[in-house]
Amino acid sequence: MDGKRIAQGDLALLVSKEGKEFLVQVEKRVFGTHLGNVDLGNLIDQPWGLTIGTHRGKTLYVLKPSLHDLTRHIKRRTQIIFPKELGFILMKLEVGPGKRVIECGTGSGSLTLALAWMAGPTGQVISYEREEAFSLLARENLERLGLADRVEFKVKDIQEGFDEEEVDALFLDVKNPWDYLEQAHQALSGGRTLGILVPTTNQVSRVLFGLEEKGFVYPEVCEILLRRYKANPERLRPEDRMVAHTGFLVFARKMLQGKGEKGDGVVLQQQ
Amino acid sequence: MDGKRIAQGDLALLVSKEGKEFLVQVEKRVFGTHLGNVDLGNLIDQPWGLTIGTHRGKTLYVLKPSLHDLTRHIKRRTQIIFPKELGFILMKLEVGPGKRVIECGTGSGSLTLALAWMAGPTGQVISYEREEAFSLLARENLERLGLADRVEFKVKDIQEGFDEEEVDALFLDVKNPWDYLEQAHQALSGGRTLGILVPTTNQVSRVLFGLEEKGFVYPEVCEILLRRYKANPERLRPEDRMVAHTGFLVFARKMLQGKGEKGDGVVLQQQ
Amino acid sequence: MDGKRIAQGDLALLVSKEGKEFLVQVEKRVFGTHLGNVDLGNLIDQPWGLTIGTHRGKTLYVLKPSLHDLTRHIKRRTQIIFPKELGFILMKLEVGPGKRVIECGTGSGSLTLALAWMAGPTGQVISYEREEAFSLLARENLERLGLADRVEFKVKDIQEGFDEEEVDALFLDVKNPWDYLEQAHQALSGGRTLGILVPTTNQVSRVLFGLEEKGFVYPEVCEILLRRYKANPERLRPEDRMVAHTGFLVFARKMLQGKGEKGDGVVLQQQ
Amino acid sequence: MDGKRIAQGDLALLVSKEGKEFLVQVEKRVFGTHLGNVDLGNLIDQPWGLTIGTHRGKTLYVLKPSLHDLTRHIKRRTQIIFPKELGFILMKLEVGPGKRVIECGTGSGSLTLALAWMAGPTGQVISYEREEAFSLLARENLERLGLADRVEFKVKDIQEGFDEEEVDALFLDVKNPWDYLEQAHQALSGGRTLGILVPTTNQVSRVLFGLEEKGFVYPEVCEILLRRYKANPERLRPEDRMVAHTGFLVFARKMLQGKGEKGDGVVLQQQ
Repeated sequence: MDGKRIAQGDLALLVSKEGKEFLVQVEKRVFGTHLGNVDLGNLIDQPWGLTIGTHRGKTLYVLKPSLHDLTRHIKRRTQIIFPKELGFILMKLEVGPGKRVIECGTGSGSLTLALAWMAGPTGQVISYEREEAFSLLARENLERLGLADRVEFKVKDIQEGFDEEEVDALFLDVKNPWDYLEQAHQALSGGRTLGILVPTTNQVSRVLFGLEEKGFVYPEVCEILLRRYKANPERLRPEDRMVAHTGFLVFARKMLQGKGEKGDGVVLQQQ
Repeated sequence: MDGKRIAQGDLALLVSKEGKEFLVQVEKRVFGTHLGNVDLGNLIDQPWGLTIGTHRGKTLYVLKPSLHDLTRHIKRRTQIIFPKELGFILMKLEVGPGKRVIECGTGSGSLTLALAWMAGPTGQVISYEREEAFSLLARENLERLGLADRVEFKVKDIQEGFDEEEVDALFLDVKNPWDYLEQAHQALSGGRTLGILVPTTNQVSRVLFGLEEKGFVYPEVCEILLRRYKANPERLRPEDRMVAHTGFLVFARKMLQGKGEKGDGVVLQQQ
Repeated sequence: MDGKRIAQGDLALLVSKEGKEFLVQVEKRVFGTHLGNVDLGNLIDQPWGLTIGTHRGKTLYVLKPSLHDLTRHIKRRTQIIFPKELGFILMKLEVGPGKRVIECGTGSGSLTLALAWMAGPTGQVISYEREEAFSLLARENLERLGLADRVEFKVKDIQEGFDEEEVDALFLDVKNPWDYLEQAHQALSGGRTLGILVPTTNQVSRVLFGLEEKGFVYPEVCEILLRRYKANPERLRPEDRMVAHTGFLVFARKMLQGKGEKGDGVVLQQQ
Repeated sequence: MDGKRIAQGDLALLVSKEGKEFLVQVEKRVFGTHLGNVDLGNLIDQPWGLTIGTHRGKTLYVLKPSLHDLTRHIKRRTQIIFPKELGFILMKLEVGPGKRVIECGTGSGSLTLALAWMAGPTGQVISYEREEAFSLLARENLERLGLADRVEFKVKDIQEGFDEEEVDALFLDVKNPWDYLEQAHQALSGGRTLGILVPTTNQVSRVLFGLEEKGFVYPEVCEILLRRYKANPERLRPEDRMVAHTGFLVFARKMLQGKGEKGDGVVLQQQ
C-alpha cells in the first residue's frame, strides 16, 4: 500500500550475490531461474529488503526497483537509450511532475519510461512511432511497469507534424532528425528545449546545420561516458571494458519566429 | 499562468549569442549586464522564446530555464554536484513525483534542487547539513527557484541519526560517509538505494568496507564523464578541455537485518 | 635486403578486407586460414604492399608489420601491456637507440619487444622474470620477431636485487612493486625514470607511499584511454565498446641518496 | 661522457618540489628563476639525480630529461602534437633505429623530435614545412636538443610531391591532408603506414574518403585520452580537469597500385 510492504502485483528486483538480476511481478506463482525456483507468493505482505532462498539453496535479494533498474529490464527490439544518457536528458529537458512532453520515436520505450516516471500522474507523455510493432512493445513494457496510463502512444509518421502544440519538451530519436525540425519547432513551446540523439558525427553536423535554419538557438553537443568499477575495496579498479559510444546528444532552444527568415526571431524592442 | 507567457516573478534564462548566460527573476526593473541593460518589465506577458535587445544593441535570447540551467546557476559556496552526476543519481535513487528523500549534506543545494524538482509538490526532500551557513544558502537558492516549500532544511549533525524512517532514497555527500552508514540504514526503507559521492579512491574503498558490514548489498561504483563538442557543423570536434573528475558515485541497497551479524539478513524461508 | 622487397624469413602481416589479421613468417610453405590457403613462397622477392589471393578467392593485403602489429601478435600467457600504454612508456622512460634498460617481469614480452625495437642493435634490454615458463615464452616471441639478440632474459627473483647498475631506465610490471623499490633505486642511474604499471588504486597508493621513502621524487600517475572509431566516412562514430582499463601508470625519478633519511638527498651546496 | 655525470652542454631538467620545471643547458652561468638563482656551472661533473639549492633556499631536483620532458619543453608557435599521441604514433609507424621517415608539416617540431630521437644516429627524418618561420623554429628546437643532425628540414609545399621515395613511414599533420594522399602514396614504401592527425570529425571523413581512392587500405581512426591523477597516496583521485581533445589519429597502409583504378592493387596470382 504505502510501499513498505510488498503487495501483489508489485514489481520486484531479485538479485543474486553474483549480481544476476531478475525483474518479476509478485504474484502467487513459482518463478524459475537457473539458480533454482522461488515461490513469489511468499513475498506478499513481506517488507522489502529481505532475502529469499531458492529451492536449490541460492540466495536472492528482494529489492524495490529504481527507474534505473526498470530501464535496464525493458524488453527491447531496438537500440535503447542508456540510463547514462537518460539521466542527463531528464536534466536538460523540462521534464518533471506535471509536464507535457513529446518523444519520437518510441523504440522499445526506455525514454518513454523515464519521461513517464518523472512526469508523474499529473503529467503527460506523447510518444510517436512509425513502426506499430515497436509502439506495441513499448506500450507492453510500460503496462508491465504500471506507467502506461501516463503515456499516449501514437503510431504515426511525423512528416505531417505532431498533433500537439505548446509542449514543455520534445525529444527526437530518429535516423533523420533534420527532416523533422520544423515539425518539432511547431509543437514545442517557445524558449523550451529540443533534444536529439544520433549515433554518428555526420548526423550531428546535419542536425546542427538544420537547427540554425529552423529557428532553434543555443545548440549544445555532448556525449556521456560511464565507467564502472569493480566494487572490491581491496582491489579497487575500473571494469575491464566499457560502453564507448551510444550516441551524441544535441540540445537546442526554440525561438519564436518572425518573418520566417533565417536567424530571424521575434525581437522585443526596448523603448 | 500556463507557462506559455512570461509572468511576473518567473525565472528567465537570458543568453547572448556567445553563450553568456544570466538567470534573472522577471520583475519591473532594469537588469544590467556588460552587454547592456534590459528592462525586464517588458517581458511580462510576452511569450517565451523571443529575443530582447539591450540598450547597447546586443541580443539576448529569453529562455525558460530547465533543471539543468537552474542547477548551473545556484549560488555556491561549496563544491557542487554536477548535472552529469545529478541526472544519473535521479535514475539510480527512487526519486520522482511523490517520493520522500533524504540528502546529507545540503552544501549549496544542487542535489536538493534536483530532488525537489523531481519529487514535485506531492513529494518531500529532507536535507541535512551541519553548517548553518550552507543550509541557509541552499534554502535561499531554492526559495529563489520557488521550490523551497518542497524541502525541509535541517541544521544537524547526523551522528545521532536521522529523524525520519522509511524514506524512499537517501544520499550522502559528506567527507566521511562510512561513519553514517548505520544511520542511513535506519532511515531508509528496505530494498531501497543509498547513494554516496566521494572524490578519492581511498574513500571509495572505505565506503565499500563499511557497506558490507552495515547491512547494504549489491554495491556499485562508477564515474561519469561528460564531453562537450564545439557545435560547429563544418568543424565538429570536442572542446579542448573537460572536467576530468568530480567524484566517484557509490550505490548500494539496504537489506533488512536479522540478528545483526555481518552479512546476515532477514531470510524468507521457502516451505 | 633493403626492406623494399619481401625476403625469405621476413615477418609479414596478412590482412583480409574485413580486418582479420595473420602474422606469418615468409617461407616456402602453404599457410592455411579459414579464408583459404596461400603459398607464402610466392611472396619471396615481391615488393611489400601487394595483394595475394587465397585458393578460395579471398584477398589478403601483404603488409610490413609495425611495432604495433608485432605487439598485438605476440603469443601471450599473461595479461600484456597494451600499445596505448607502451607508446607512452617509451616516451616517459629514457628509451631509444643505444639505451640500456631493465624491465621486470618479462611476462609474455610485449614491453620487452617495444624496448628491444627502440633500443636497437646498439642498445640492451635486460628482462627479469621469476617464472621460467614466461621467460621462455617471451624469448620465443622475440626470437620469432628477430629481436631476441637485443635482450638478456633472466629467470630470477629480484628480491636479491638486479645484477646491473647505472641503467638508463627501469620498468616494474609486478604485483608488489613496492617491495622492489630499493632494488630499482640501486640499479637505476641518478635522475632517471622508474616506470610502474599496476591495475588497482590500492596498489597505486602503496607504490606512492613507497616512492616517497625510497629515494624517488616527482611521482606522476596517469591512465591512458584509447577510443577507436568505425572508419566509415559517411557514418563516422566511435566503436560501441572499448577497453576501460588495463592499469595505472606510475612514474618517478631516482634521486641520489645522502644519509639515507627519508626525503633526504645529495644536495649540491651553492657557494 | 657516459651519461652518468653531467657534462657541459648537457640538457638538464630542474624541477621544484611543487612540480615547476625548467629545461636548461648546463654551462658556466647563473640561471635565474622565480624560486631563486642557481649556478649551473656547479653541476658540471656532478652525477645526475642530485638536488641543487637556489640562493633563496629553494630546492631543485636535477634530472636527466626523457623524450617526454623534451617534448613538453620545445618552444612552440603552433599547436603541437602531445606526448599521448606521439607515443602511439611511434608504435603505429615503422619508426625506430635506422628508419627513414617523412613528416609534413614540421610545425614547432614535437613529432620531429620524437622521430629523430627514435630513428637514432643511423636513421633519418625528413621534415617538410611550408612556413619558413616554423621550420626555423623547429630546427632551433632540435639543435638545442642536439638532434638536428638527424633531420633534414625542407621548406616546401608538398603539392609538387615529396623528394623521397621508399620511406619507411610518413606522417601528415596539415589542414588538408586529403590533398596530399597521392604524394604520400608515392613517397611511402609498399605495405607501410601513413599516419594523419586532424582535429575535426569532418576532416576525418574527408581523409577516409580520400584514402579509399588513393591506394591506401586498412584505415584506422582513434583518439587517445590521458587522465592524470593527483599523486597523493591518501587522497588518490584524478586531476580536476584534463585535455579532452587534441585530434583524431588516422592510419592506413599503402598498397601498390595496378592500373590505377579505385580499389585496384597489384594482385599476386596464385598458381
